[in-house]
Amino acid sequence: MKELDIINKIKSQLITGGNDIICGIGDDCAVINTNSTSLLVSTDTMLEGRHFDLRWHPAFMLACKAIAVNVSDIAAMGGTPKHVTISLTYTKDMTEDWLDEFLSGLLHMQKQYSLNIIGGDTIIGDQMSISITIIGESSSPIYRSGAKVGDSVYVSGPLGSAAAGLLVCSEHYNDLSKVENKYDKLIEHHLCPPCQLKLANALAASGLVTSMQDVSDGIATDLAHIAKSSNIGIEISSNKLPVVSQLQDLVLEYSKDSVDFAVSGGDDYLLAFTVKAGSNKQIEKVAASVKRPIYCIGKVVEGEGVLLVEQDGASTDITFSGYQH
Amino acid sequence: MKELDIINKIKSQLITGGNDIICGIGDDCAVINTNSTSLLVSTDTMLEGRHFDLRWHPAFMLACKAIAVNVSDIAAMGGTPKHVTISLTYTKDMTEDWLDEFLSGLLHMQKQYSLNIIGGDTIIGDQMSISITIIGESSSPIYRSGAKVGDSVYVSGPLGSAAAGLLVCSEHYNDLSKVENKYDKLIEHHLCPPCQLKLANALAASGLVTSMQDVSDGIATDLAHIAKSSNIGIEISSNKLPVVSQLQDLVLEYSKDSVDFAVSGGDDYLLAFTVKAGSNKQIEKVAASVKRPIYCIGKVVEGEGVLLVEQDGASTDITFSGYQH
Repeated sequence: MKELDIINKIKSQLITGGNDIICGIGDDCAVINTNSTSLLVSTDTMLEGRHFDLRWHPAFMLACKAIAVNVSDIAAMGGTPKHVTISLTYTKDMTEDWLDEFLSGLLHMQKQYSLNIIGGDTIIGDQMSISITIIGESSSPIYRSGAKVGDSVYVSGPLGSAAAGLLVCSEHYNDLSKVENKYDKLIEHHLCPPCQLKLANALAASGLVTSMQDVSDGIATDLAHIAKSSNIGIEISSNKLPVVSQLQDLVLEYSKDSVDFAVSGGDDYLLAFTVKAGSNKQIEKVAASVKRPIYCIGKVVEGEGVLLVEQDGASTDITFSGYQH
Repeated sequence: MKELDIINKIKSQLITGGNDIICGIGDDCAVINTNSTSLLVSTDTMLEGRHFDLRWHPAFMLACKAIAVNVSDIAAMGGTPKHVTISLTYTKDMTEDWLDEFLSGLLHMQKQYSLNIIGGDTIIGDQMSISITIIGESSSPIYRSGAKVGDSVYVSGPLGSAAAGLLVCSEHYNDLSKVENKYDKLIEHHLCPPCQLKLANALAASGLVTSMQDVSDGIATDLAHIAKSSNIGIEISSNKLPVVSQLQDLVLEYSKDSVDFAVSGGDDYLLAFTVKAGSNKQIEKVAASVKRPIYCIGKVVEGEGVLLVEQDGASTDITFSGYQH
C-alpha cells in the first residue's frame, strides 16, 4: 500500500473531529478549543519484537492495547482522555487486511472512550512501531507524590496476568487454540489489558486517594515510583497479592513462582494507589459502586523503597525490581 | 546504555518544566495549565534510512532538525510552539557520545524556542526513530483553506536546497570536507532547515495571509494541499521560483534540472502562503520588518490543482507531484 492510501483510509475510517476540535487531521496542526481545566499529555511507543509480537497478536487487539496503555496513563492521573495522535511505522509485509483490522480496533477504542484522533504520521520501516500521544483533561490530577505514612496501598485487580499471558502466547503461538480455554484470562490480559478508567475517575472523585500510578512495569517498580516521589517507604505483604487462579495453574505447569509474576510482571495496566489512613472501608465502597474489585496489599511506612514482607515476617527489598521490556 | 540511564540523562540535561507546567516528566502524564487560547498539536516521526542517514547526519543537527520540522508545523499555523514529547527508538550501536550530542541539540532548540519537553519514551530497536509531538498555541490559527481567487502565492525562501543538500551528502559522505565549501548552504539546509517562526508570526499578525502551510514535500504537493482545501487552483511561474546559486552549480555538475528541485524537492520546511489580492507591497514590508526574504511565485485562480507555467506560456499540471520519502 502507498502512504497516501493509508492516510486516506485512516481519515475515512476513523472519527477525526469532534465538538471541541476546531481542526483535526488535514492541516499542519490539530487545533483544540481549550477551557479552564488542566490538560494531561502522555506518550507511549510500542515496538514490534519488544512490546508485541505479530506472530500471535491480532491487529485488532494490538490497536486496542496501543490505545489502552495510553488511556491507562490518563486514568492513573484521575483524568479523562480526549485526544490522541498516532504515528504508525509499518513494514512492507503489512497487508491491507491487517490494516483494516488494526483500524477497526482503533475505531472501537475511539468510540468506547469518545476519543478524537487529532493527528499522526505513517512511515514505512523495517520494524513495526506504534507511537501514541494522548491528551486528556482533569480538574484535579492525582500525582505520585502525595502518599503519607499510615496510608493503605491498593491495587485494582489481580497482578501478573499479562506477563503470564505473554508466557503462554510465546510458548504456544503455533497451537494457541489448545490452551486458550485453560488460560483465556491470562491471554486476554496480555493481548489487551482491561480498562481502569471508570474506577480511576471514581477513586479520584472520592478525595481519599493520596497518590496513584498505573501498573505497567510490575508493582515492584511502579510502587517504587510512588515511594520515591512521596519520600516514603512502602511495605507490601506477599500473601495479599491478588492473582487469578489461572496464574496459579500456570506456575505449577511451568515451575514458576506466582509472587514473582505478581511483583515483577509487566504490562498489567491496573492502578496502584494509596488511600488516606482510616479510609479503607470508604474506598472499598467507592470501588464497589462502579463494580470493580480493589485489593489492599500493604501500607505506607517511614523510610524509602518497597519491601516485600513474607508471612513469616522475612522481608526482601524489591525497589525497582520490576519488568524491563 | 540502559534505558533508565538514558531517561535520567534526559531528565538531568533538559528543561522539563516551566511556569505553566504543573507537572512535566516524572509522572504518568504531563499537566499543562491552559488558558483561553487555541492549542496546536502536531506529530512528526523521523526514521533512520528514510528521513535521515547516520552516515553523515551529526547527532546535534539531527536533534535540531527533529525539533525544527515540528516547530515548522506550528509556525505554518501562525502559532507559538510550547511543549513537546519525544519518543526515541535507539539501536544497540548508539554510543553515549552520540546521545550527549543529540541531547545538546535538543537543549539548543529548547532554549531557542522556549520549549518545554513534557514527556516521551525511549525504546531499543533495530532502526533509529524519533517521534515528536508538539503542542503550541495560537489566538487565530491560519489554515490551508482560506485562499481566494486573485490572491498572490508566496514562498519564504529559496526552494529545493534541502533535496540538493541530500544529494551532495549521499554522494560525498565519505569526503564531505571536499565539497562543503562549495555546497555549504545546501548541506546546511538538509541537515537542519532554517527557522521560519518569526516570519510566520509576523505574517499571521498582518491579517493579510489567507492560507499558509509549510513546504515539506515540495511545493507541487504542498500548494496542492492549499488548492484542495481552499477549492481553488494555483498557477506558479517557473522563472519566479527562487533557488540559491549553489543549486545552479549543482544541477550543472549532476546534469539535473533546478526547476525539478524547486518544485518537487522535499524537506525545505519553508512557508508557502497566499496573500489577499492587492496586498503584495504590504506583505513584503512585513517580511522586511523581520529581515526575511519572501518571493511571489504565482497566483490563485479558478479551478483546481497546481499548474507550472513556463516562460513561453506552456504549462504542466504538477498537482501532488512532490517528494515522497
